[in-house]
Amino acid sequence: MEPLLAEAVTVRVGIIGAGMIGTQHARRLVTQVAGCTVTAVADVVTPRAAALAAEVGAAVCWTWQDLVADPQVDAVLVASPGQAHVDQVLAAVAAGKPVFCEKPLAPAAADALRVVAAEAAAGRRIVTVGFMRRYDAGYRDLKAAIEGGEIGEPLLAHAIHRNASVPEGFVGEMSITDSLVHEFDAFRWLLQQEVVAATVVGVRRSPLAPAHLVDPRIVLLEFANGAVLDAESFVTSGYGYDVRCEVVGSRGTAALDHPRATVILSDGRRAEAVPADWSVRFGQAYRDELRGWVAALAGSGAGGSAVPVGAADAWDGYAAAAVAEAAVAAHRAGARTAVTLAAIPAMYR
Amino acid sequence: MEPLLAEAVTVRVGIIGAGMIGTQHARRLVTQVAGCTVTAVADVVTPRAAALAAEVGAAVCWTWQDLVADPQVDAVLVASPGQAHVDQVLAAVAAGKPVFCEKPLAPAAADALRVVAAEAAAGRRIVTVGFMRRYDAGYRDLKAAIEGGEIGEPLLAHAIHRNASVPEGFVGEMSITDSLVHEFDAFRWLLQQEVVAATVVGVRRSPLAPAHLVDPRIVLLEFANGAVLDAESFVTSGYGYDVRCEVVGSRGTAALDHPRATVILSDGRRAEAVPADWSVRFGQAYRDELRGWVAALAGSGAGGSAVPVGAADAWDGYAAAAVAEAAVAAHRAGARTAVTLAAIPAMYR
Amino acid sequence: MEPLLAEAVTVRVGIIGAGMIGTQHARRLVTQVAGCTVTAVADVVTPRAAALAAEVGAAVCWTWQDLVADPQVDAVLVASPGQAHVDQVLAAVAAGKPVFCEKPLAPAAADALRVVAAEAAAGRRIVTVGFMRRYDAGYRDLKAAIEGGEIGEPLLAHAIHRNASVPEGFVGEMSITDSLVHEFDAFRWLLQQEVVAATVVGVRRSPLAPAHLVDPRIVLLEFANGAVLDAESFVTSGYGYDVRCEVVGSRGTAALDHPRATVILSDGRRAEAVPADWSVRFGQAYRDELRGWVAALAGSGAGGSAVPVGAADAWDGYAAAAVAEAAVAAHRAGARTAVTLAAIPAMYR
Amino acid sequence: MEPLLAEAVTVRVGIIGAGMIGTQHARRLVTQVAGCTVTAVADVVTPRAAALAAEVGAAVCWTWQDLVADPQVDAVLVASPGQAHVDQVLAAVAAGKPVFCEKPLAPAAADALRVVAAEAAAGRRIVTVGFMRRYDAGYRDLKAAIEGGEIGEPLLAHAIHRNASVPEGFVGEMSITDSLVHEFDAFRWLLQQEVVAATVVGVRRSPLAPAHLVDPRIVLLEFANGAVLDAESFVTSGYGYDVRCEVVGSRGTAALDHPRATVILSDGRRAEAVPADWSVRFGQAYRDELRGWVAALAGSGAGGSAVPVGAADAWDGYAAAAVAEAAVAAHRAGARTAVTLAAIPAMYR
Repeated sequence: MEPLLAEAVTVRVGIIGAGMIGTQHARRLVTQVAGCTVTAVADVVTPRAAALAAEVGAAVCWTWQDLVADPQVDAVLVASPGQAHVDQVLAAVAAGKPVFCEKPLAPAAADALRVVAAEAAAGRRIVTVGFMRRYDAGYRDLKAAIEGGEIGEPLLAHAIHRNASVPEGFVGEMSITDSLVHEFDAFRWLLQQEVVAATVVGVRRSPLAPAHLVDPRIVLLEFANGAVLDAESFVTSGYGYDVRCEVVGSRGTAALDHPRATVILSDGRRAEAVPADWSVRFGQAYRDELRGWVAALAGSGAGGSAVPVGAADAWDGYAAAAVAEAAVAAHRAGARTAVTLAAIPAMYR
Repeated sequence: MEPLLAEAVTVRVGIIGAGMIGTQHARRLVTQVAGCTVTAVADVVTPRAAALAAEVGAAVCWTWQDLVADPQVDAVLVASPGQAHVDQVLAAVAAGKPVFCEKPLAPAAADALRVVAAEAAAGRRIVTVGFMRRYDAGYRDLKAAIEGGEIGEPLLAHAIHRNASVPEGFVGEMSITDSLVHEFDAFRWLLQQEVVAATVVGVRRSPLAPAHLVDPRIVLLEFANGAVLDAESFVTSGYGYDVRCEVVGSRGTAALDHPRATVILSDGRRAEAVPADWSVRFGQAYRDELRGWVAALAGSGAGGSAVPVGAADAWDGYAAAAVAEAAVAAHRAGARTAVTLAAIPAMYR
Repeated sequence: MEPLLAEAVTVRVGIIGAGMIGTQHARRLVTQVAGCTVTAVADVVTPRAAALAAEVGAAVCWTWQDLVADPQVDAVLVASPGQAHVDQVLAAVAAGKPVFCEKPLAPAAADALRVVAAEAAAGRRIVTVGFMRRYDAGYRDLKAAIEGGEIGEPLLAHAIHRNASVPEGFVGEMSITDSLVHEFDAFRWLLQQEVVAATVVGVRRSPLAPAHLVDPRIVLLEFANGAVLDAESFVTSGYGYDVRCEVVGSRGTAALDHPRATVILSDGRRAEAVPADWSVRFGQAYRDELRGWVAALAGSGAGGSAVPVGAADAWDGYAAAAVAEAAVAAHRAGARTAVTLAAIPAMYR
Repeated sequence: MEPLLAEAVTVRVGIIGAGMIGTQHARRLVTQVAGCTVTAVADVVTPRAAALAAEVGAAVCWTWQDLVADPQVDAVLVASPGQAHVDQVLAAVAAGKPVFCEKPLAPAAADALRVVAAEAAAGRRIVTVGFMRRYDAGYRDLKAAIEGGEIGEPLLAHAIHRNASVPEGFVGEMSITDSLVHEFDAFRWLLQQEVVAATVVGVRRSPLAPAHLVDPRIVLLEFANGAVLDAESFVTSGYGYDVRCEVVGSRGTAALDHPRATVILSDGRRAEAVPADWSVRFGQAYRDELRGWVAALAGSGAGGSAVPVGAADAWDGYAAAAVAEAAVAAHRAGARTAVTLAAIPAMYR
């Protein structure tokens, strides 16, 4: 049964970062999630914070440090640029306030590990990382099928991650660190295995990709039990947002196919629409991850975990960052690169 | 852009009927809908009302009349048995309180027409009827395709409405009045046409259907512009809940197919799960219709409509009841039966 | 195991009618069917017969009577216009030569019945009627699923039969007598039941249909055991050739879906091609029905049936004609019309 | 238009190898292909040759050398074990008789190259290699989509090749040399590019695979233009025969999906059958490749090519063998291995 708010606990959320994702999350919190209010907003561009604060009925904080310290803020949602995450999350952990941090937890695995260490020292899981696919109905069905034994032992998997196009700021190896990182987390979670090595396979460049991008490419991940994932990343596919996968087991396979839309028969063709972008494809998952977070906060009481069951925690954020780092290194070296993780604190096992 | 609750208006909802659907709606309101609380619950079985009230943090009312009069209740959700709807909705209208009434608005078209008349006399639309399919993404895509001209002029349509099984109390012609009534509303809404006649085609009885049910059968509806719908109703199909349709236009067709789930390949078969029941298939639509209702209430201000744009209103509830009544009559007479509607008040056009 | 031609029997086929379908059949016989040659061709337009004869290495006959009598002709394929069929088939029966007659066996049920009577009097089934769907892999799978009990007792069925467009000569009620007649035969065969009544439901006319056609429409058939078929006929659908159906049983359903083609993802869309016409959709079935016919001829020996197991025989041709006749009458009368069949000779049971 | 046999040329085929595939081809030739007879059969196990010869009305030859020399044999079909192919094909080339050689042309690329050299010296293409996928409607649609520019420039491709199980004699690296070799030819043909390197990626072994097999695994092929194929081979998948692929282009993708069968809705599930094995999935392609071969023979006249347009020739057989050899070497070395082809004779360009 779904958790209810019998005592009308209302969680007061402060939001750091009033850009696209921060704004979307703020709107979701006030219109689609029961049991919470947004009480404070901070952004390095203060007028942007002010606009969002006005829209959702919150106060403006001049700095994120003020926001973390604000007694009107019970929990912090971090939606700033990735490189700012680690200091903000560490501050919230130090203040004992639960955090929802958009992925990545930190671009550098060493930084993410600092969060793990701080949280482990505090002895309580309060950092949730925004890998929303864990809340998608399709991925959940996939995981249930695997764990239900329907396909036998998982042996290998195929994944596709395509975007129609990318915004201007999408540069360098972001197709690994920002896009495929979702697959890194999703397959760790689906297979319940850590990644031990990454290889990047270069393919023919798309003549339509911007000159500064290596696009498309294939990343191979090896998991601790020998399972292998081949994942295609293609961020300028042109035609739409397309995320699919198939997990191959010893007795069958389980696949996440296109979500089916209305079928149009016309002009000699049977056609279904492909989602335009991730907000269409995973809109429901974004909503549900925030609902799960607020419900976990309301129920976490004194000393319990503030991370929803099944959500990504700081360790997951660290592991995904370590895989991404290895994949970028593998790309640069043109060679298979091992992923070496720190020892996992008992709290995360 | 989605409506925001900038001023933190919180709508206080009273719920009449603490059975299955009333309980589900109450839980949705307190966990999945922002901007509302449930403040009162009434049920002819008071202990049942008390249990639900405790769960959602509401007070118990001894009678539904008390609930409608309660100053802590801004809006009323009617989830009692169908025959009780008309008096409760009329009372709410008399009190000037917006109502969300589960379908049917009233089993008898004449009763539904009394609601229309009372509301029209009051001069403001405040009665919303719970035809949740209008909030389903598939139906919305279908409507957009039709209105976007992708299929030319709609000429005819096919519909299937199957349940795996029905509860004990499902008797008489409820496969028309309780199940197919969803198709009656959905196709009026999709085609933007009133129904002018109904015919019921008897088919071979299922040997697995209870003796007191006529199951399956086919209902033909004729619309004002000559379009025809053939709709299969099969409430003891055994295999699952299956709602599909295809609208055939002069240049193409638009179809609502099975929602696609995870695909399992095993044992010589490629299989997708069929939803078990309507709460699985339309869970998201139920949630969104309540969100839409609460948002409309918050935004309705003084004198505006309290019915969300696109939702079914009292006229729609009346028209669906009139079609259902004609279909039942057609079944009994074994003959095509005309649907005669009262004149539509200007407010509903 | 497939029948082999161990003794190298070569069946010599004469073809009456060198129009489109006669030409296609002739080409199939000489290039895709082992064990036969085409030895004679007749057509009312003799130059047309001569051209086809030259192409397939056959002689020209001045009249179809000559062709039936020709000692170089072992078996006759009738592909002339429908109204000519009955005399030609009767002549072949009189000559004791096996016939493959394109549908319809005769436009008038009374004429088809004359063939049945003549053949029954002769005491041997030698007339095969060209209902090629019985050779389509999809229909065969459907029949196997029904007979294998996978769906329980068949109760009702839905069918769609759409053409992109029709040629100039497609007039009157040919959408019933030439198109839907395929469904009439196919569902008699799938359900193993005779049709007892037909009703035609008029729908909104397509603004794109020629003025002389009633298009689309829905035909309802009632079968002897109470099962009902609703079949849509839409011969100017514009978008392609689309034949689908679903048989609904007491425990499940079996459906013939679109044959899947290559899937193209582009321009925001996942698209599969719809066949352009019946020669694309049923090309393989046409080939296999001729292969089945030639194999049956080669194996029929003295006195055995020359109709392949599973193919439509004269009785099937008569029954389909009777259903078509009733459906046309039902359309004209605007009322349900009974189908009354003659007593079936023992030979056909 | 399909080729016709206006002059009733009948090609007399001799078959070397009366095992499973030889027997199937013989039966297809006599029952499903017009314009040919089987006149001679040879097999190292003479009684097996005799049985097949009796079944198809052919003579028995004591040795394959006798068969090649037999004046009653116009063309030779080689269906013996792979290691025997090269001598038999060379003998037929020496005798000037067209050959249809089952894949592989030869297990060793050097042997296949001897065939290429001999044929090039003779100056006429008369060796056809049995890569039947080129005759599959799905693959043909895929190729047409690529060549029609629907997906832009092909950049990479994914392929899956799964068998339910393998026979006893399936050992060593046959999953590369016997199974994936179909993908090696198919993608050379689809992309019109030679392969320049192969890498084999080991994955977690299936606990259900026989101990002597490495199964499943992934093979990466790099093509001359930089395009990459990742191909999964899984010969003990258990659930069925499953061959699919997707070619990813700069503007879209083209995919070969499961062939769709009848859809069964029952027991909470929407299910389609997966083909049991390759003879079900590619039965039509096998038939059509033989029809194409016989038609090419009938039309080849003096000095023309006896290889059907679009079919695999000796060069294709050599190239596929070279890729397979490199993939086996890559597996053994655990490293990327280059594919080095001889210079292509002008005749094959």
